[in-house]
Amino acid sequence: MDILDTPCLLLDRPILEQNIDRMLAHTSQLGVDLRVHIKTSKCADVARMVVDRGGVGITVSTVKEAIHFFELGFTDMVYAVGVVPSKLDRLADLVRRGARVKLTVDSTEMATAVVSYADEADVGFDVLIEVDTDGHRMGVEPGSQDLLKIASLFAGSKQVRLCGILAHAGESYRCASPEEIAIHAEQERRLSCAASQALRDSGMECSVVSVGSTPTITFATGLNGISEVRPGNFVFFDLSQAGLGACRIEDIAVRVLTTIIGRNESTNRLFVDAGALALSKDLGTGGQDVDQRFGLVRESIGMRDELIVTEVSQEHGTITTRSGKKLDFDHFPIGSQLTLLPVHSCMTSAAYDGYHVVDSEGTVEAFWQRCNGW
Amino acid sequence: MDILDTPCLLLDRPILEQNIDRMLAHTSQLGVDLRVHIKTSKCADVARMVVDRGGVGITVSTVKEAIHFFELGFTDMVYAVGVVPSKLDRLADLVRRGARVKLTVDSTEMATAVVSYADEADVGFDVLIEVDTDGHRMGVEPGSQDLLKIASLFAGSKQVRLCGILAHAGESYRCASPEEIAIHAEQERRLSCAASQALRDSGMECSVVSVGSTPTITFATGLNGISEVRPGNFVFFDLSQAGLGACRIEDIAVRVLTTIIGRNESTNRLFVDAGALALSKDLGTGGQDVDQRFGLVRESIGMRDELIVTEVSQEHGTITTRSGKKLDFDHFPIGSQLTLLPVHSCMTSAAYDGYHVVDSEGTVEAFWQRCNGW
Repeated sequence: MDILDTPCLLLDRPILEQNIDRMLAHTSQLGVDLRVHIKTSKCADVARMVVDRGGVGITVSTVKEAIHFFELGFTDMVYAVGVVPSKLDRLADLVRRGARVKLTVDSTEMATAVVSYADEADVGFDVLIEVDTDGHRMGVEPGSQDLLKIASLFAGSKQVRLCGILAHAGESYRCASPEEIAIHAEQERRLSCAASQALRDSGMECSVVSVGSTPTITFATGLNGISEVRPGNFVFFDLSQAGLGACRIEDIAVRVLTTIIGRNESTNRLFVDAGALALSKDLGTGGQDVDQRFGLVRESIGMRDELIVTEVSQEHGTITTRSGKKLDFDHFPIGSQLTLLPVHSCMTSAAYDGYHVVDSEGTVEAFWQRCNGW
Repeated sequence: MDILDTPCLLLDRPILEQNIDRMLAHTSQLGVDLRVHIKTSKCADVARMVVDRGGVGITVSTVKEAIHFFELGFTDMVYAVGVVPSKLDRLADLVRRGARVKLTVDSTEMATAVVSYADEADVGFDVLIEVDTDGHRMGVEPGSQDLLKIASLFAGSKQVRLCGILAHAGESYRCASPEEIAIHAEQERRLSCAASQALRDSGMECSVVSVGSTPTITFATGLNGISEVRPGNFVFFDLSQAGLGACRIEDIAVRVLTTIIGRNESTNRLFVDAGALALSKDLGTGGQDVDQRFGLVRESIGMRDELIVTEVSQEHGTITTRSGKKLDFDHFPIGSQLTLLPVHSCMTSAAYDGYHVVDSEGTVEAFWQRCNGW
């Protein structure tokens, strides 16, 4: 391991495979397709692992991801962020090259713009209408007239085909218990089904009813009426998901390898070369039962004194004991390495070009590239 | 401007030049050299602008930056993060190629390791001893025996040359007023001078007394005994620096260009395509008088209702009014663009490959590359 420059990102392949298999077994039991959101890994090797084992395609959140993954062989995708006119040229180009990209729209303005672009450019777009099931972010009200107005704009187009609806219960990330998340999951399901039924009652097509987030899918007990789910984080998991109960800490597949660069016995602190850029400043466990601050030292798991990264500056992380107990500094010489579990794997991973893939012994097998930026 | 894909980073060249000129005039008046920290811009074009106008070299915080900037013509640098054995090979290689890199050490363990590496590898290293002037992070106590022990280890080496000391008053970022920052600056100066005097009293060399952060240098009224300062953020500034009083909001040189992708009149919110990755999750103004949350909409500056980014998810930013006043939605059509001022420019810039450099009219003149990662 000491041949790797730090900080860098390690990806534990056996844990990754286990997370993917478990989610596929769960979605199979629920009777829904898994369309993995690749925003977490941004890595074709990870996405291929999901699709090869039974996933139905991918979900992307940037046009750059759409292009990158298409060029690596992924032709079936949902672009799950509301589209805007300035992005249609690049998306139309993908469609002409053979991609099946479903666009997301939640306003009559954009529905009109997409229809007129498609007619003018003579390009066929598939679209989903985003519905808002929990007031979290974008989307039309499931029972609103807006939903039917948008659908009718598409119905009048020869080039644009309405495929269904899309929802994302983002508020589930604020839940305090699995039971509460399950309630959110059921609300996401019920309101998505109501929206799809409203479309069908008006004679529109709605073959796709797409929902999801890692927490709601994990705790959903039934998904009648849903065709596909779009969790992303589950491939890696992280401390925030563990705090929600969506995984165990042992299920976290991605870690930051770091080197101890300094120590201060009088203040009981270690300093490492993974700081704000290497970990991100996501404090997503701050409102949970256990506040992991900027990350947990994996080597301390199961020991009474768990070590956490309490402070970060750009290239420094400060580690101390959660309990305040004195560190045994003999165990932490300068120059030795630690592995840090991320609070939010989507954010942490984004600082790196890719993953050093390791087996269960920690031996590096491969380097898998990420697709960062826009 | 509408030819740029969003989100992307704009760099206002006239403001950048003004920030650099102002800092150089200030350091000149204080009688100290300016060794710009390039961790903020990670951009050779920006660093060259500082050096060409009077800076004495650069400060780096990663080995990758050291290599990148050396290969672009910067030979004189301080690597201001505590060095560890695993990084010495790459740094020795730079020295052999002609770089003058001063390493930072704050322990007898690393002093011993650097000396024995240099002897064995037959490479000459210049070193600085880091001193801790405010309990913020790394460094030995200025008046401690450790300082002299480390220095004496270097004195016994033929290959390692002790050049002086280095301090960083990072606690200044937690100050509530310019007056308080000035007190920190004077403490940083006084304790650094005490450390350098202790070295000289023991017959050691201490030609370099290097201090600094953007806040302490900005509010320092005298820097007697200091040879050089290492601020970095001042080239761009940001909302956190404005909150500290180190700049005006109008002095912020870097901005995120974003597109409105959705609107919700009932919740009084706009949604843009700059989210957590495009802005970072730095909430650095949270403890200041004005909480800017994840960023300020530049177009609203000077208007009674300032618009801020209140929430972010990975690729979505949520904008609303600070006062709760209803937005005039006619002014914010879907597809139109806004520019966002960052809370912390070092963190925000790190998500991008580079800067679209704009003149005072907003016309794009150039694209300047960044050096990200490790």
